[in-house]
Amino acid sequence: MPTVGPRSGDAIFANVERVNAELFTLTYGAIVRQLLTDLEEVEEVNKQLDQMGYNIGTRLIDEFLAKANISRCVDFKETAEMIAKVGFKMFLGVTASVTNWDIEGTCCSVVLEENPLVDFVELPDTCQGLYYCNVLCGVIRGALEMVSMKTEVTWVRDVLRGDDSYELQYWRDHRCRWLLGFSRYMQLLFAKPNPT
Amino acid sequence: MPTVGPRSGDAIFANVERVNAELFTLTYGAIVRQLLTDLEEVEEVNKQLDQMGYNIGTRLIDEFLAKANISRCVDFKETAEMIAKVGFKMFLGVTASVTNWDIEGTCCSVVLEENPLVDFVELPDTCQGLYYCNVLCGVIRGALEMVSMKTEVTWVRDVLRGDDSYELQYWRDHRCRWLLGFSRYMQLLFAKPNPT
Repeated sequence: MPTVGPRSGDAIFANVERVNAELFTLTYGAIVRQLLTDLEEVEEVNKQLDQMGYNIGTRLIDEFLAKANISRCVDFKETAEMIAKVGFKMFLGVTASVTNWDIEGTCCSVVLEENPLVDFVELPDTCQGLYYCNVLCGVIRGALEMVSMKTEVTWVRDVLRGDDSYELQYWRDHRCRWLLGFSRYMQLLFAKPNPT
Repeated sequence: MPTVGPRSGDAIFANVERVNAELFTLTYGAIVRQLLTDLEEVEEVNKQLDQMGYNIGTRLIDEFLAKANISRCVDFKETAEMIAKVGFKMFLGVTASVTNWDIEGTCCSVVLEENPLVDFVELPDTCQGLYYCNVLCGVIRGALEMVSMKTEVTWVRDVLRGDDSYELQYWRDHRCRWLLGFSRYMQLLFAKPNPT
């Protein structure tokens, strides 16, 4: 079982300064709307939201470490659990659970029970390729990069796109992903046939 | 003394869903940064922030009226007090006070004790004309327009611009402002001399 940080997300969330969630949701909606107007291409909006999130994440990590009294996480698994159990609660007031670990412990899914970013949101047909909450991918990526953990974070399920839940996928250092695939390919290619 | 709404801002704020204020502050900062990059002209950014706020305000008014159990305000004075005492508390968790009423009761100032939008913000020299929190002007304007109250809302003091506090000025229906000036001018021009 992963180690849980010294302070729970609930305890921290109860004591930090907060603003009304609806104001936050509408403010975030205003950003997405603005980007859709300015950039036109949905793919560009996805990228920009991720980049904005990255900038936010690189700042937010300080508050996270200070308020949660977290020392060093021992591995990627513990880090992912910490983000899900403490981070999401502390900043958005929601709970998330980590699941679907790969064998190498370099990739997992994080499923959100609620998502305050999407209250009142319906995507029109013209925005079907949009990852409306892509800012969250950037926030996690930015925050983890500040603690020397390169990741790739993407949405794999999204209720706004017709799925049944919100699910993010974290890859630890995406270069590993390709190196792993490449090395397996090479192993297969040059594998000596078993002696018969 | 203006009538105070059936529910206090504190009571409502304690019971609504909330998110971490720092996340909100950084998200708002990301909007401003994005607009500065896209629009280049600071004056255009001020206008765009006001317009985004207007869109937010036209939606936020529903939550305000529903949660605060407010019936009709009798006049502009009561409305301004309601925004300051209930609205600012309910959405931003801060207190504001209404002051500097003109004789006609059509213009007042609202002074904010704190401003969560500006934590960690310093404006570089290139942004000296920026009204960083102009979104708030738009929010108030948009919300009031939804209850048939046309207003002009501007910043008159701003700590980020070197002032000692945050002060907004509300004008009830800015057309009145010019009509009032014009009618006074006509009165002076055509005034009969007092009989001696």
